Amino acid sequence: MQKILVANRGEIALRVMRSAREMGIKTVAVYSDADRDALHVRYADESVHIGEAPSNKSYLVGSKIIDACIKTGADAIHPGYGFLSENAAFARQVREAGLILIGPSPEAMEVMGNKLSAKAAALKYNIPMVPGTEEAITDVNEAKKRAVEVGFPILIKAAAGGGGKGMRIVESELVFEEQMQLAVSEAVSAFGDGSVFIERYVSSPRHIEIQVLGDTHGNILHLFERDCSVQRRHQKVVEEAPSSVLTPQIREQMGKCAVDVARSVNYSGAGTVEFIMDENLNFYFLEMNTRLQVEHPVTELITGIDLVKEQIKIARGEAISFKQDGLQINGHAIELRVYAEDPDNNFLPDIGTLKTYITPKGPGVRVDDGFEQGMEIPIYYDPMIAKLVTYGKDRTEAIDRMIRAIDEYKITGITTTLGFGKFVMQHEAFASGNFDTHFVSKYFTPGSLNKGNEEEALIAALVMETLLNAKAVAINNNIQTEDSNWVKNRRG
Amino acid sequence: MQKILVANRGEIALRVMRSAREMGIKTVAVYSDADRDALHVRYADESVHIGEAPSNKSYLVGSKIIDACIKTGADAIHPGYGFLSENAAFARQVREAGLILIGPSPEAMEVMGNKLSAKAAALKYNIPMVPGTEEAITDVNEAKKRAVEVGFPILIKAAAGGGGKGMRIVESELVFEEQMQLAVSEAVSAFGDGSVFIERYVSSPRHIEIQVLGDTHGNILHLFERDCSVQRRHQKVVEEAPSSVLTPQIREQMGKCAVDVARSVNYSGAGTVEFIMDENLNFYFLEMNTRLQVEHPVTELITGIDLVKEQIKIARGEAISFKQDGLQINGHAIELRVYAEDPDNNFLPDIGTLKTYITPKGPGVRVDDGFEQGMEIPIYYDPMIAKLVTYGKDRTEAIDRMIRAIDEYKITGITTTLGFGKFVMQHEAFASGNFDTHFVSKYFTPGSLNKGNEEEALIAALVMETLLNAKAVAINNNIQTEDSNWVKNRRG
Repeated sequence: MQKILVANRGEIALRVMRSAREMGIKTVAVYSDADRDALHVRYADESVHIGEAPSNKSYLVGSKIIDACIKTGADAIHPGYGFLSENAAFARQVREAGLILIGPSPEAMEVMGNKLSAKAAALKYNIPMVPGTEEAITDVNEAKKRAVEVGFPILIKAAAGGGGKGMRIVESELVFEEQMQLAVSEAVSAFGDGSVFIERYVSSPRHIEIQVLGDTHGNILHLFERDCSVQRRHQKVVEEAPSSVLTPQIREQMGKCAVDVARSVNYSGAGTVEFIMDENLNFYFLEMNTRLQVEHPVTELITGIDLVKEQIKIARGEAISFKQDGLQINGHAIELRVYAEDPDNNFLPDIGTLKTYITPKGPGVRVDDGFEQGMEIPIYYDPMIAKLVTYGKDRTEAIDRMIRAIDEYKITGITTTLGFGKFVMQHEAFASGNFDTHFVSKYFTPGSLNKGNEEEALIAALVMETLLNAKAVAINNNIQTEDSNWVKNRRG
Repeated sequence: MQKILVANRGEIALRVMRSAREMGIKTVAVYSDADRDALHVRYADESVHIGEAPSNKSYLVGSKIIDACIKTGADAIHPGYGFLSENAAFARQVREAGLILIGPSPEAMEVMGNKLSAKAAALKYNIPMVPGTEEAITDVNEAKKRAVEVGFPILIKAAAGGGGKGMRIVESELVFEEQMQLAVSEAVSAFGDGSVFIERYVSSPRHIEIQVLGDTHGNILHLFERDCSVQRRHQKVVEEAPSSVLTPQIREQMGKCAVDVARSVNYSGAGTVEFIMDENLNFYFLEMNTRLQVEHPVTELITGIDLVKEQIKIARGEAISFKQDGLQINGHAIELRVYAEDPDNNFLPDIGTLKTYITPKGPGVRVDDGFEQGMEIPIYYDPMIAKLVTYGKDRTEAIDRMIRAIDEYKITGITTTLGFGKFVMQHEAFASGNFDTHFVSKYFTPGSLNKGNEEEALIAALVMETLLNAKAVAINNNIQTEDSNWVKNRRG
């Protein structure tokens, strides 16, 4: 492998290129109109313009990516995450063009890309699934019988459902029939189909995922878990490794399950097997992501393994150079996704220009980003500015470092999730480790955040103005005033 | 401990404040005229101006430091390295003022601050010393007898010597008398004293040092070694941990010796015991530095221990919370000191303004610095701009990352040691681990360095100018030219 084209943008494009460069492999960037001046374009050895700003005119057009490879002589493609990274059809096109896709086979993507085929594959290895009916039911008595078997609380879900319609949480057998009838009538009126599934309702779910690596020689191993239970809008915003709730035994069981899921599709490359976990540490398979995850740095920090380098080595046919027994967890890592969005306004994107942009440094801090001061966050893409990752010898130190790093991070011109991140780090539920995916709805009140840097900077500016006015008055009155150095320090 | 005054400047002041902040301790900066706008002043919760730029008017004036503590209510002082950090008299003043010095006792500083008393203390624990005479000799026959006992090659050193005068390396017994006479006559004419010491000459020395930590409860342990053999002007410029030559047995022996040296003065705090090592891995005690070292980050990266936090905890009377058995080396770390100096001009300081200053990021990179783009490197202090530290799962990865990080580091306006660092990383002797403190004199030819960033930027500017001229000509001739995007990419 001589030259890798990175079919992505932003922080992940830079992230991939850094590892390629360390391996002595040349890199090619692709960019849309909106990304002409982006850092990933500057970082690459070469770059190719691939079209207009909207993704479906550039980053999502497989043929343009393949053409760019041919033009530059790149022999491999790293898709990053998002865009074409889990697109089996694209993976086939790449293969047919005689190029290497740094990722799993199109066949593995296909099986895991569909919930039903993914579950079917996993069931062959007896992977635990959320208990429930495998087929849709219409009969109330039959449904009740199954609900009792599954155990309350249960969830009734319309078979044809979506968007929460025809969905009911039932706490006990006593109210089952009544709730079932409501669900069925809702389903009938919404979808014209009254059949439902019954499954165990996990009331305090944690999102735990296992990082796996497989090679083309049949070796598959796992790199422990990531806990991604702090979410907003059903999307991850804070991730950590290891999880504060797993026992060594459950870690081993989950790791084995994840390896089995990967084995069910002869997985090669880096992938993630996602599980939902209940309060009693029962875990159930959700899905497999057949790509590098946004939150992969926390795993890199606790294992010392560069996952992108492993992906590249696997793609060029090498066997994984370490064994499961040789891996161990060292310390604790936390990632905060720094988004250009307003936590006080339902985490809606807040696009604009990074007027001030100073990143934190020092021990145990890693910032993966794709921006510099003065740059604009384009409206066309995911509004993530950076991933702020901290590492410590234990969870407490990682949290302390995250708070320190958030305080050092200076962003003005855009509202970000930094202040929200600090709220999470300082919250008793997060500190204790006793939280679930409902963290935000349970504890966070929109409008409750101190607006952070921006407001502080504004206040400092006002104070400075007042002082300068006072000084002017004082000078006019021929009186000496003290150095106003403390104002500057307040902003430090 | 509520508030720490950091009696230092630059990167180490910031480094210390970061750990204090993570521990919830307030910080006070002190600054000279030259450092009014320095980052450490902005970072601290409070700051105190302590005088004119030359150190002996500010950072070296113990009474001003103590006054600043009283003024701000700081109850402890972290001295960093250099300046007052190993000044026993200052340590006594601090104690008498009822303040805490974050460091060892004045008594320990005093014993280790003098070569003779340091050796005497170490000898009580049978620490290996470079073999040689303990007392000065004048008689040639006596000297020859001792030289044979010590074993050739030997070094004859004038007892009253300094600056290499009266110093002779003698390769064999055959030429001993002749060389001894030359040394004695040189010593007589230079110092009026012909007496000499005889000691084993270590022809291929490595500088290996052991990090130790002691507390006030009698616990002393070591955090393995740092190899600081790449030096220029007898000063370290590249350091790494672990050393590529130590065996586990020798590591354990050196660790034990270092702990014994520390025990000989009831050491509390962080300290470093320095050894010289010969080709056969024999090691000899050189001296003990009773403070935090510049190169402490490499130890932090391989052990996961925050040394500044440990210093603070020890100073407030806590027992060290881990045991020797609980420590292990994970991965490999390398530090490059980025100095404002010109390797092609005998590494002489090259002071000026940081016109461009962009630091590297990404996995395994830590930058400890004290500057921002646009700032000036003051002429009054050590011209270190930053410490660039990389970490990898093994030495090869740490080297690959260092090269990648050096390439990402953009500094213009000042000549730095970055290009020299790349030369070291890419040199076969460094890669193989087979090098000694003569690395620079053996392999580095001044004037041989590609001037790096600056020259590249200059070339790119010239190319751009040529292209623009060509474009102007083309436009005049009404001919379209291609996008000159590749010029920008070349600079990436």
